[in-house]
Amino acid sequence: MRRAEPTERTRVRRLPERGVYDRAVIDAILDEAFICHLATLVGGSPRVIPTIHARVGDALYVHGSPAGGTLRALRESAEVCLAATLVDGLVLARSGFHSSINHRSVIVYGRAREVTDPEEKRRAQEALVDHVAPGRSAEVRPPTDRELRRTAIFATPLDEASAKVRTGPPEDDEEDLGCPIWAGVLPLRTVVGPPQADPRLPPDIGPPESVLRYRRPGAPG
Amino acid sequence: MRRAEPTERTRVRRLPERGVYDRAVIDAILDEAFICHLATLVGGSPRVIPTIHARVGDALYVHGSPAGGTLRALRESAEVCLAATLVDGLVLARSGFHSSINHRSVIVYGRAREVTDPEEKRRAQEALVDHVAPGRSAEVRPPTDRELRRTAIFATPLDEASAKVRTGPPEDDEEDLGCPIWAGVLPLRTVVGPPQADPRLPPDIGPPESVLRYRRPGAPG
Repeated sequence: MRRAEPTERTRVRRLPERGVYDRAVIDAILDEAFICHLATLVGGSPRVIPTIHARVGDALYVHGSPAGGTLRALRESAEVCLAATLVDGLVLARSGFHSSINHRSVIVYGRAREVTDPEEKRRAQEALVDHVAPGRSAEVRPPTDRELRRTAIFATPLDEASAKVRTGPPEDDEEDLGCPIWAGVLPLRTVVGPPQADPRLPPDIGPPESVLRYRRPGAPG
Repeated sequence: MRRAEPTERTRVRRLPERGVYDRAVIDAILDEAFICHLATLVGGSPRVIPTIHARVGDALYVHGSPAGGTLRALRESAEVCLAATLVDGLVLARSGFHSSINHRSVIVYGRAREVTDPEEKRRAQEALVDHVAPGRSAEVRPPTDRELRRTAIFATPLDEASAKVRTGPPEDDEEDLGCPIWAGVLPLRTVVGPPQADPRLPPDIGPPESVLRYRRPGAPG
């Protein structure tokens, strides 16, 4: 199994037993998370925004308006940090100190490279559409040249990535186990509701299989 | 209604019609989101981590180990940016270009102040426990002095905050409305599963009402 070797920055220091460097684990979290949070440096200050991402092999793509603040910032300072987080459950311990949240998260450090090759840009754009709904890029009308020009895409390599995973029950102190306090986990799950057709859609166009059988890549069940 | 006046940084420039500066909207998003993403400056580079937050009035609290990398970074450079994001639905447009995600997000810029006053620290710690599960701080055993010492808490004011909200159907170009392509929204919802008792819990201790009737503050239905 491929591993991203931990660097000084990606080594999980707090609770190191929760650190994971297997690329299979990292990739699965990135693929399942709908969005990531992208941190950049703007005028010397940190800035973080939510954005759609897509992984293709060893590259993590994000996109946006070429005139937008974040992508302008990427051109000025290519150093980025991205985090994708899945919240799996609420950990209710007997003490506040051990209360927690079960989660799977990935953090990626790197330099974001602007994608200028037309073929790579088209593939990345398709991957971003398919990240929202697998298979969707084959259903939509193809992008126009103008749309491709109006979209800036950046790629960050997954060389410096790590995952952090917390699962299971609370980790209360031994001396608290006798407290008459309920402890356990409230599991959380993201569910997809029935599709809501665009009001402007002709009534004879029904949702495709990709919508009817929507399933998140990597998601349980 | 209170408003956070938009500053140069918080004014929503891309699709400004989605920008919201009402504190009631900002507060509701912060209160509903389980976690936020906290961006700091570490050695001149941006760093972002997921973390539990809690809002008390005009302050946004985060906590961590005093020895942890992020809180050490906060002591070095108090400038932070926090983002809390709720993903509400997948927007499947007729074109990839207009594909999107319905979401509510808040971004907060500010200087994080370390909380040293014991009373404020205790209240913030309770708020962090109650953020995970409302009412939980009254059920757990109270924090010890040692636990309070082993927890660092930082407060960021909500003076410089903005929300961004996208709702509703795809915004396809007029000329695409005739395409024979299904378009609409796949709504997403986070649901709480049945409580999983800690295996070390005596069987005669049942879950409290706060667990049985768990409901996210601000969450619909």
